[in-house]
Amino acid sequence: MQPPPAEPGMSIDQIDTPALLVDLDPFERNLERMSRAVHSAGVRLRAHAKTHKCAAIALRQMALGAVGVCCQKVSEAEALVNAGVPDVLVSNQVVGARKLARLAALATRARVAVCVDHADNVKALSAAAMGAGAQIGVLVEVDVGAGRCGVAPGEPALSLARQVSRSAGLRFDGLQAYHGSAQHIRGFAERRAAIEAAAGHVRATRTLLDRAGLACETIAGAGTGTFQFESASGLYNELQCGSYAFMDADYAKNLDEDGAPVHEFEHSLFVLATVMSTAKPDFVVVDAGLKAIAFDSGPPAVHEPAGAQYFRPSDEHGRIAAGESNVRLALGDRVRLIPGHCDPTVNLHDWYVAVRANVVEEVWCVDARGALF
Amino acid sequence: MQPPPAEPGMSIDQIDTPALLVDLDPFERNLERMSRAVHSAGVRLRAHAKTHKCAAIALRQMALGAVGVCCQKVSEAEALVNAGVPDVLVSNQVVGARKLARLAALATRARVAVCVDHADNVKALSAAAMGAGAQIGVLVEVDVGAGRCGVAPGEPALSLARQVSRSAGLRFDGLQAYHGSAQHIRGFAERRAAIEAAAGHVRATRTLLDRAGLACETIAGAGTGTFQFESASGLYNELQCGSYAFMDADYAKNLDEDGAPVHEFEHSLFVLATVMSTAKPDFVVVDAGLKAIAFDSGPPAVHEPAGAQYFRPSDEHGRIAAGESNVRLALGDRVRLIPGHCDPTVNLHDWYVAVRANVVEEVWCVDARGALF
Repeated sequence: MQPPPAEPGMSIDQIDTPALLVDLDPFERNLERMSRAVHSAGVRLRAHAKTHKCAAIALRQMALGAVGVCCQKVSEAEALVNAGVPDVLVSNQVVGARKLARLAALATRARVAVCVDHADNVKALSAAAMGAGAQIGVLVEVDVGAGRCGVAPGEPALSLARQVSRSAGLRFDGLQAYHGSAQHIRGFAERRAAIEAAAGHVRATRTLLDRAGLACETIAGAGTGTFQFESASGLYNELQCGSYAFMDADYAKNLDEDGAPVHEFEHSLFVLATVMSTAKPDFVVVDAGLKAIAFDSGPPAVHEPAGAQYFRPSDEHGRIAAGESNVRLALGDRVRLIPGHCDPTVNLHDWYVAVRANVVEEVWCVDARGALF
Repeated sequence: MQPPPAEPGMSIDQIDTPALLVDLDPFERNLERMSRAVHSAGVRLRAHAKTHKCAAIALRQMALGAVGVCCQKVSEAEALVNAGVPDVLVSNQVVGARKLARLAALATRARVAVCVDHADNVKALSAAAMGAGAQIGVLVEVDVGAGRCGVAPGEPALSLARQVSRSAGLRFDGLQAYHGSAQHIRGFAERRAAIEAAAGHVRATRTLLDRAGLACETIAGAGTGTFQFESASGLYNELQCGSYAFMDADYAKNLDEDGAPVHEFEHSLFVLATVMSTAKPDFVVVDAGLKAIAFDSGPPAVHEPAGAQYFRPSDEHGRIAAGESNVRLALGDRVRLIPGHCDPTVNLHDWYVAVRANVVEEVWCVDARGALF
């Protein structure tokens, strides 16, 4: 693991690059806004840690009322529990004896839950829980429109819920009903319609479960793009938003009710890069490319100098054109980039450098960086 | 850091996923083929470690005749020197006092060289070398067509070479003349023409340097896509190929002299994934997405089951359609993927699992994973 690129007290100019920067003022405002939103809606927040992979951030979210975190991988959950997080939902399927044994072992030292969408997986999960003497919470994942994992709403979900409720070592907690592909629908009305459709599936499924005497303590889902609709549904009671803490260039393209870009959360995550070559007349080269920034949602936006443009990344390089900034950058100058997609960008770094007013305040470990298993 | 996903002696079915797999038989054939090619061309190989970031692999390349490795970052070079590699060229510009001090310190305990393309950087490099009591080798980077870093051929290169040769603590080694963008030109004749043009720039520049009494001990460049042309140039004498060890889906699209896909090197690097959801009729979901595979050169090709297709990745998931394989995969089944681009894929993993005939033979650390600085 690399040593941290900065120490508390340093000026931003002394940070080694490329570095993952958290600007604490907007970051804290984002956390507080979400805390107020879920409180006033009367729902719980279980913030998604696949975004930040960091116990220091998870514990701040919990201090503001989050009931715990979500993870996507057992190893991610282990890393966060090891760093002090007491309550984790693996909001995903866990398949394979080795992973299930690790999950069950984790459930003996933290509150742990997981999602299922296959009867064979429920059997294997129960066996693992019994083997470890653990109790594992289980949400039955229902596909409410995302078209990825999850059984169909209605009878298939009921059947799986019955199996879970009868399985030793397992505790039926309710439904996982996350609509992933709705998060980045740009239009407000279209996003709302997608979640209303999802809520219809949830309502029908919950009714079936109620009749069968299977109470859903938790109906979980929602992301940063849609949480206001799940909050208002009267059905979802546990939200799984993650990106709200940081925002990214992609989420910022969603539109609000008035057709303007959403603005409830601010960009707080940046990649700080340094100009390392100025040999060309039309652009400079910075030290952050495919190994420091994720490009699956497009190139990063340039936050500073505003109006400049990042283009043609290679593994360790990126090109910056002055664009509307009209700034001619010099060797050693710093550039602040807004990642297109925060989650896979964070996963490329070992450390966050948390700054306030351009001074380093804290350095946080990306505890679950590379936790693929 | 995550524990290794396998141990020597395990069957391939016991490897935890998603795992980075090296198939030793084709991998060793690739290393031997390149070794024979450079030997018969009478040139040196300095294999690029930005691809593999692994001392175990670097030392195998050196055992077959490579004179050392290239790195792109000081921290990458440190990681490999710490793991036993004695000779490293940072084939890139190093900018900033903190990085230069680390480079100079490294040069007191290994043979170290670096590239430059700016007079201010030469001054700072010399100061760092003097400060550490080190000698650092320097290649003047010339832009021979890549359009990224590097001064123009001819007088600008001569001017920088003069400055290097007069700078305390620095040793002028020659020219860096890598044509990065030529590597993935698909047509054989077009690739050859690009390198012939590059060689023209190198020849003119070397002539100027010769007249000035500045001998180029090293003229460096070439990658897996073009090395046969640099080898035949009579100018380049140190090749920097990296991907040949693994190959990837993108390099395999280059065409040979007969218009057929190149075949001198074999795919030896794979991402092994597991089917984790089979709830949908048209595809299954595997446990490897944007955090386990790089997508900048397109999605991975499916090696096994051959003919199947990977599509619509998300952070921790990918979808596999049967395609021409006609195989209906079941929960827990394994899928072997060929990454579109090997370098940034390797950087997502902490470990290689080296297998032969489907048995784990060794586990290698990705020593310089995340070495961004």
